[in-house]
Parts: sequence; structure tokens; C-alpha cells
Amino acid sequence: MSSFSQRLSDAILRTKTPLVVGLDPRLENLPKTYAPLVNGNIWDQAQAIREFCYWVIDVVADLVPAVKPQLAFFEELGPAGTQALADVVRYAREKQLLIIGDGKRGDIGTTASAYANAYLGVHSPWGMDSLTINPYLGVDTLQPFVQTARQRAAGIFVLVKTSNKGSGDFQDLIMRSESAAAETLYQRVAAELNRLAHEANAATDTYNLCEIGAVVGATYPQQLVDLRERMPKCWLLIPGFGAQGGTAQDTAGGFHPNGLGAIVNSSRAILYSFDPDDHSHGWVDAVRQATHNANQQLRDGTPAANL
Amino acid sequence: MSSFSQRLSDAILRTKTPLVVGLDPRLENLPKTYAPLVNGNIWDQAQAIREFCYWVIDVVADLVPAVKPQLAFFEELGPAGTQALADVVRYAREKQLLIIGDGKRGDIGTTASAYANAYLGVHSPWGMDSLTINPYLGVDTLQPFVQTARQRAAGIFVLVKTSNKGSGDFQDLIMRSESAAAETLYQRVAAELNRLAHEANAATDTYNLCEIGAVVGATYPQQLVDLRERMPKCWLLIPGFGAQGGTAQDTAGGFHPNGLGAIVNSSRAILYSFDPDDHSHGWVDAVRQATHNANQQLRDGTPAANL
Repeated sequence: MSSFSQRLSDAILRTKTPLVVGLDPRLENLPKTYAPLVNGNIWDQAQAIREFCYWVIDVVADLVPAVKPQLAFFEELGPAGTQALADVVRYAREKQLLIIGDGKRGDIGTTASAYANAYLGVHSPWGMDSLTINPYLGVDTLQPFVQTARQRAAGIFVLVKTSNKGSGDFQDLIMRSESAAAETLYQRVAAELNRLAHEANAATDTYNLCEIGAVVGATYPQQLVDLRERMPKCWLLIPGFGAQGGTAQDTAGGFHPNGLGAIVNSSRAILYSFDPDDHSHGWVDAVRQATHNANQQLRDGTPAANL
Repeated sequence: MSSFSQRLSDAILRTKTPLVVGLDPRLENLPKTYAPLVNGNIWDQAQAIREFCYWVIDVVADLVPAVKPQLAFFEELGPAGTQALADVVRYAREKQLLIIGDGKRGDIGTTASAYANAYLGVHSPWGMDSLTINPYLGVDTLQPFVQTARQRAAGIFVLVKTSNKGSGDFQDLIMRSESAAAETLYQRVAAELNRLAHEANAATDTYNLCEIGAVVGATYPQQLVDLRERMPKCWLLIPGFGAQGGTAQDTAGGFHPNGLGAIVNSSRAILYSFDPDDHSHGWVDAVRQATHNANQQLRDGTPAANL
């Protein structure tokens, strides 16, 4: 199997878009057609989010390179929900979509290895292509994920500068340093990721990008430009486009001039683009149209025009 | 229902120990009696970890106040494993043990709410009493967990200074500050937790402890003393005792003089205390003995002597 980065680059060049559709199945927002299941027991509810995600996958499979299931919304429904997650991931893979598991996992030593194994390992029962990771615990806790990703041609996206309003509480703190240059916590994390991306055994693709990625919010466009520069070989996964207020132009700084190097996630603005009072299956057309619109915005407003 | 902190204090006073048994079911370490299941398919393997955890719970139920299932080891077995997790949690609750879900979750806005709902909510399908949380994303991302914990008489344990060797990579970085006092990242996180613990609606128990806890490793005894002082109302969950090298004496600084305020986790040193070549059910006795030993060490070496 070719490297995660190569598969991602190829899929972006094929679909001519860096758009990732976030699968955030929220019971309270599902189309009215699912009301009987939503009002049922927890297994019915899990069936509702499973079917909803299947439909979304059907709609977007030819239009985008990847989907990003948000694990929280599946875990909210207990074992029934996690079974739905496994089914949704399998379905998306059958449709040739790459899977970015948004779990923001992180732990020490053999526990980190267990998470890496769980989501990225050769025998992963979830079968994801990549996983989002939280770096707070330190660089040694990233290693098991990096190792597993390299063994299995998978990828990771480490939180660097997140899209929420309070992301500065800790990430923007400036470190005391001997040298003159001020450095924030998120820049320090970025420096470590850049180091990992330059290791001899990094799985670099034909576009000089590798399996180490970073999460940087569209809501911080200037930091995006800065971080693009600090991590030239890393993919940037950019949330915050759409419902959170980031525009296509805000994401532009995350790309290399060839249109690669960044993927842009949209969840709510695509999934819940339909009229909530519509009781028909017409919601599927709204999702298709919203995906087309997001693609067009990214092609108009970013270097994705060059894909 | 009384507050999480009150339930925890009461359980500690009843069992006269701050010991928490970590449920880290690793397939490769299970007693030989489980070999047929371990060598089976993934549902068999999930059955092996389920039965193993049931036995451990039976053994420790009268000896300790709480167990801490490590979610990674259940997720490693996919939906079969997460179903086992739900079963194990239910079984432990039936045995009156408090449940600390070790998931180290963290995300923004409504996604954080979904995680809080999933594990701590009124209708939580997992039914845990508390959850470990990663603070990297910022204080606003802790709020949904705090809110849910307060509504549902649950608790949270936020990572502050973790037990791994590399925990200093980011947590120990010193912030540039106008004031003279140097402050590390983990001290800054601790200050925010202390602030949350002093909010008017904090669920303070009769011992002046509340629902906001912090994770601080036994492997950093001096930091433990410092952090005990900085967060007087917060429970400290102390990993790193036993297999990771921390002694009972190393954890002593985490306690208040009355023996409350800290809980000490041991996983491997208790779960895998048996002779790995023993093919009999004798492993259960070894687990019982290891639990007694750990209790004795904590009573001898910490203010838990005063419980």
C-alpha cells in the first residue's frame, strides 16, 4: 500500500478539492425522516446515525477525498454507537474514501500503543487511515502513534492550534527562552512535529509531504500562515471552515502553491444544510449542493485552484 | 445522589485506603486460563477481557473505593471491546465500586458536550462516575465537562503533570510572565482548575473537596507537593505507583493530613502480579494479595494512615 500522504495527495488531485466532510451525527439535527428511530431506544438511535452517515457517504463519495468521523457522537450512544462507527468506517472505505478518525487520543507508553493499534494498526478493528492526537502528554507519547503510522502506511494529525475561542488559554502562552525569539506553546509543538517529519524513516510522498499532520483552525488565519512555514512537510488539517465562521480565504495560508498540503474540514455546514422542517428525502440533495458549494469556495479562494 | 467527591471520600473512609485498581486488560498478559479465548476471534478476546475484569472486580470490590478502566485496551478490540467495557462498568457499579473512566478525552464546544454526555451524562450508556480529561484545547473546552459533572454529581480529573518520562516536553515549559514568579504550563493548568474548584456552584463535600480533580504522577513527588498546595479543594489522581516506579512515599505529598484528597492508581502491579506460567485459577489469589500489599504500603507510607 502506498503511504497515507500519497493516498491523500492522489485522492485530492483526483477530486480536485481539499474538502473533508466531517461526520458529526447529532441526533437532534437529523432529518425529520429519522424521527421514528431517533425517538426509539439507543439501538434505534444508533441505526439512525448509521443510515444518515451511509447516505452522506453515498452523496459525497465522488466529490471529496476523505471523511472525518467525530468519535464523540458515536460514543454518546454507547456500544450501539461504537458499532455504528465501525460500520460507517467500513462503508466509507468501500466507497474509496480516506478515513480521518477524529478521536483526539493521547496517553502514555503502552496505552498510547493500544490506541495506535486500535485505530491504525494492521489488525485495527476500526480500520481508519489516520487519527487526530493530543500532544499535551509529551513527545514520547506521540512516538507509538508515529511508529504505528509508519508501519501501516497510516497518518496522524496532532493538535497544534485549535479552532475554538479559548484555544489561546494554553496554546498561545509564550515560553521563556534564552534566545531572543519568542515562541508560543503551539509553535513548540509544531517544531517537534517538524522534527518528526524530517526523520530519515518518514514516509514522504512524491509531493514532499509525509504522514505527520497538524490540526490548525481556519479561525486563526495568521497562525496558519506561520505554521505552514514551520512545518513544510506536514499536512495541515483545518477545521473551523463553515459553521465556525472561517472562510475559504481564511484557509488559503495553509496550502502550498500547488494546492496540496492542507485539507479543510466542514461538518455542520454540509450535514445540516437542509431545511429542518422538510419531512422528505430532499435533504440528500441539500447535502450534495452544500458539498458542491464548499468545493467551489475552496477552488475560488485558495491554491486548490491549482489542483 | 450525593456529590462525586462525597461518594469518593465516603468510600475511601469505608475501605480505609486511597487505592484505585486500574483495569488495563492486556490480551498478552492475561492468565493462561484464558488462552483458548485469547487465541480466538475478536469477540472471544473481548469475552476474555470481560471475564478477567469481572474476576478482578470480585476480588477487589471490598478492598478499594474505585476502579479505573483504561478505555484504550477496550477500544483496541473494536465494538466487541467497547461492549465489554460497558459490561465491566455495569458489573463494577453493581459491586458498589466508583468508576473513573480513563479516556483522556478533550474536544471543543458541542463535541466536548457529547463526550461529557457519553460518559457522565444522566442517560450515559457507559455510566461512569468520573472521566479523565486533556486540557490542551483550553479552559472553554473543560466547561462542558464541569457543567455535566455538576448536573449529574459526577467528577473529572484533568491532566496536569503526567507520570511519563517525557511529560516535561510541554508541561514543564516555563511561561514568560510580567510578574517575578516563574510558572510552568502545568502550574498554569492547575491555577485554572483551582479557579473552577472555587466557583460558587462547585460541589464541595464535607471535607472541602470538590468534583474537579487533577492527574499528577507519583513519579514527580516534588511537583505533587507543589500541586497539592496550589489546588487544595481538588482531588489528585496519582498514577505511576507500582509498575512505573513510584513508591507509596512518593505519593505522600498528594494527601491532606486527614488522608483524603488523593487517590493512587495501580494497574499492572496488581493485575499481573501472578506467575505468568501458572495455568491454574490461582492468579486470583495473587491479585488479592497484591491489592492487600498495595493497601498496606499506602497505609504505612502516606497520610492514609489517618483514615
